[in-house]
Amino acid sequence: MDIYQESIALHHKNHGKISLSLKVDLKTKKDLSLAYSPGVAGVSRAISENPEMVKDLTIKKNTIAIVSDGSAILGLGNLGAEAAIPVMEGKAALFKRFADVDAFPICLATQDVEEIIETVKRIAPVFGGINLEDISAPRCFEIEERLRKEMTIPVMHDDQHGTAVVVLAGLMNAIKIRGGQKEDLKVVMNGVGSAGVAITKILLEWGVKDIVLSDSRGVVTIDRDDINDVKRSMAGQTNPRKVSGMMEDALVGADVFIGVSVGNILTEKHIERMAKDPIIFALANPEPEIMPDIAKKAGAFIVATGRSDFPNQVNNVLAFPGIFRGALDHDIVQFTDDMFIKAAQAIAACVSELSVDMIIPDPFDESVAPAVAAVIR
Amino acid sequence: MDIYQESIALHHKNHGKISLSLKVDLKTKKDLSLAYSPGVAGVSRAISENPEMVKDLTIKKNTIAIVSDGSAILGLGNLGAEAAIPVMEGKAALFKRFADVDAFPICLATQDVEEIIETVKRIAPVFGGINLEDISAPRCFEIEERLRKEMTIPVMHDDQHGTAVVVLAGLMNAIKIRGGQKEDLKVVMNGVGSAGVAITKILLEWGVKDIVLSDSRGVVTIDRDDINDVKRSMAGQTNPRKVSGMMEDALVGADVFIGVSVGNILTEKHIERMAKDPIIFALANPEPEIMPDIAKKAGAFIVATGRSDFPNQVNNVLAFPGIFRGALDHDIVQFTDDMFIKAAQAIAACVSELSVDMIIPDPFDESVAPAVAAVIR
Repeated sequence: MDIYQESIALHHKNHGKISLSLKVDLKTKKDLSLAYSPGVAGVSRAISENPEMVKDLTIKKNTIAIVSDGSAILGLGNLGAEAAIPVMEGKAALFKRFADVDAFPICLATQDVEEIIETVKRIAPVFGGINLEDISAPRCFEIEERLRKEMTIPVMHDDQHGTAVVVLAGLMNAIKIRGGQKEDLKVVMNGVGSAGVAITKILLEWGVKDIVLSDSRGVVTIDRDDINDVKRSMAGQTNPRKVSGMMEDALVGADVFIGVSVGNILTEKHIERMAKDPIIFALANPEPEIMPDIAKKAGAFIVATGRSDFPNQVNNVLAFPGIFRGALDHDIVQFTDDMFIKAAQAIAACVSELSVDMIIPDPFDESVAPAVAAVIR
Repeated sequence: MDIYQESIALHHKNHGKISLSLKVDLKTKKDLSLAYSPGVAGVSRAISENPEMVKDLTIKKNTIAIVSDGSAILGLGNLGAEAAIPVMEGKAALFKRFADVDAFPICLATQDVEEIIETVKRIAPVFGGINLEDISAPRCFEIEERLRKEMTIPVMHDDQHGTAVVVLAGLMNAIKIRGGQKEDLKVVMNGVGSAGVAITKILLEWGVKDIVLSDSRGVVTIDRDDINDVKRSMAGQTNPRKVSGMMEDALVGADVFIGVSVGNILTEKHIERMAKDPIIFALANPEPEIMPDIAKKAGAFIVATGRSDFPNQVNNVLAFPGIFRGALDHDIVQFTDDMFIKAAQAIAACVSELSVDMIIPDPFDESVAPAVAAVIR
């Protein structure tokens, strides 16, 4: 039985991974009269008279929605709402396990941007935050941006910012070991989807000056006519040396490679073209852009992947539970870039003994989520 | 501290009444890889290839939505979505407590019929059923009817059918004690909102022939020009003796009074006009149409109320948990009138020693929900 069959068996046995449980007793008539009618009428009236009390008196204080339209499920593509449910349930389980956040999966039977936005706004009353998940680019950018503007609860697309925060945490620690300043780094970012765009933005915001983006057709430059508006906008904010050509051209002299597209596209020859002691984030899943041992042999100083069977796993679970824990605890109105950079610093600081094989905390490091939550305010 | 203040304190202490919990372990890397990436990809693929597997492999098998727009919260009126949350949470707690159904509150920031319908349809993928709650009449009728036609998961407006099922159960037992045939009963139904309409329909379906409806303006007749379409339709199906006038006129010779409107409108004089040994369902909350002791003194044979501090409490909790338990267990596509009548029979049969003060089981009778679930198929 492979891991997929084993996972199917586990899901079958339990009919999924999460359930509801009670925070109050329901044993006596008195219990019923307090949790439900007639006592609950007093709670409804109190909220009606004092709307801000909804957080004190209901699950809104600790509950978020994990919203997906199933358009970009893991690396599997557009499999639709039903196929997204097990992933969103898994995410909900991680929210509970790592930060005691009650997260409920909302899988939408629409992939229309306007319909998604209006539906999320309509179901918002019971939720204290919205985690968008597995929504394809470039639709995910507009959906997140609009919801952030139009809602009064925090909204985050985790495929963007969760990944970006953990990559930044890893990069912060990597350059502590390797030496050098963020302002001097030359970075090649391969893949300009949801994660690629968010990583690029957070690196720019943090202070990296020289990032070159590439996709399957080569370096993303402002004069290409085959790119969407988001890529064009990113092209305008990157590539100060006006590099052109393919990814391999951009790699000449680069200090950092970050891959978030497809596996097995980076070779030893590519790594040999980079600056001395390059830092490699080979994050494609399940096959990384290059296997860590091959990258190391070719001269890579530090290699991170998305996989749990190699050192330095870039795992969003280090970010999203603490980010929403902090958002709920501190009643933040909306997330900011600054919060995400602080979250990356908090994650980076959780590694007590830095080494080339330990730039990112273990996913089970219990100190991470509280440390992240503390800075989301 | 009154019951309302005590309830507010309870809600404040816990920030609501329900939370999420895990059905799988998340202690090791292996656990993570089965519940989430990479193993969960196998589950998503399986559902994508075999859509009906969504019930086997996800929470859809045991999860329903409790949907409200907050337009008719308990007896409080239109207080909106946020004020509805504590009631829907309470309902969710009852679903879990009495039938192990995982129910999640969805409180909508819209009261537009079309928007409610389209929103419920869009969020349906993760749910195996929809319990509509506290939506005002006559909007509730159209919303339920449309959703039943347009969705492939069972939909029930509990304010209608939950109440109707328990009233019918009580009436079944009441006439067992009092004697007589359902076909010969003269029934006066006061209140033609969600509960009144549903009770009338189920009584007609069950075989009662003579029902007279009344509202605040008197007997509901087809020629009144101040009634909505739903009342007009009900008028066309009732009142075979062409009674006219006010409620007190309809009560002359009636065997059964069922009140689901406002308290303190029934007097001893009213009861004295009814047939010998009348059956009184005085269901207005918190003040019944007449207090049981007064009704009894005036000649009532059996009195039921909505209150837990009197005998014969008509409490929906006897119906909805088992109804949805059965719907989920037996994969029913949609509820039917016949299922609701069978549910009433099942509830009635749970009373082992019938008496005038015991026509309806105690809300904590653990045999009720399984008995109801068994007939919903």
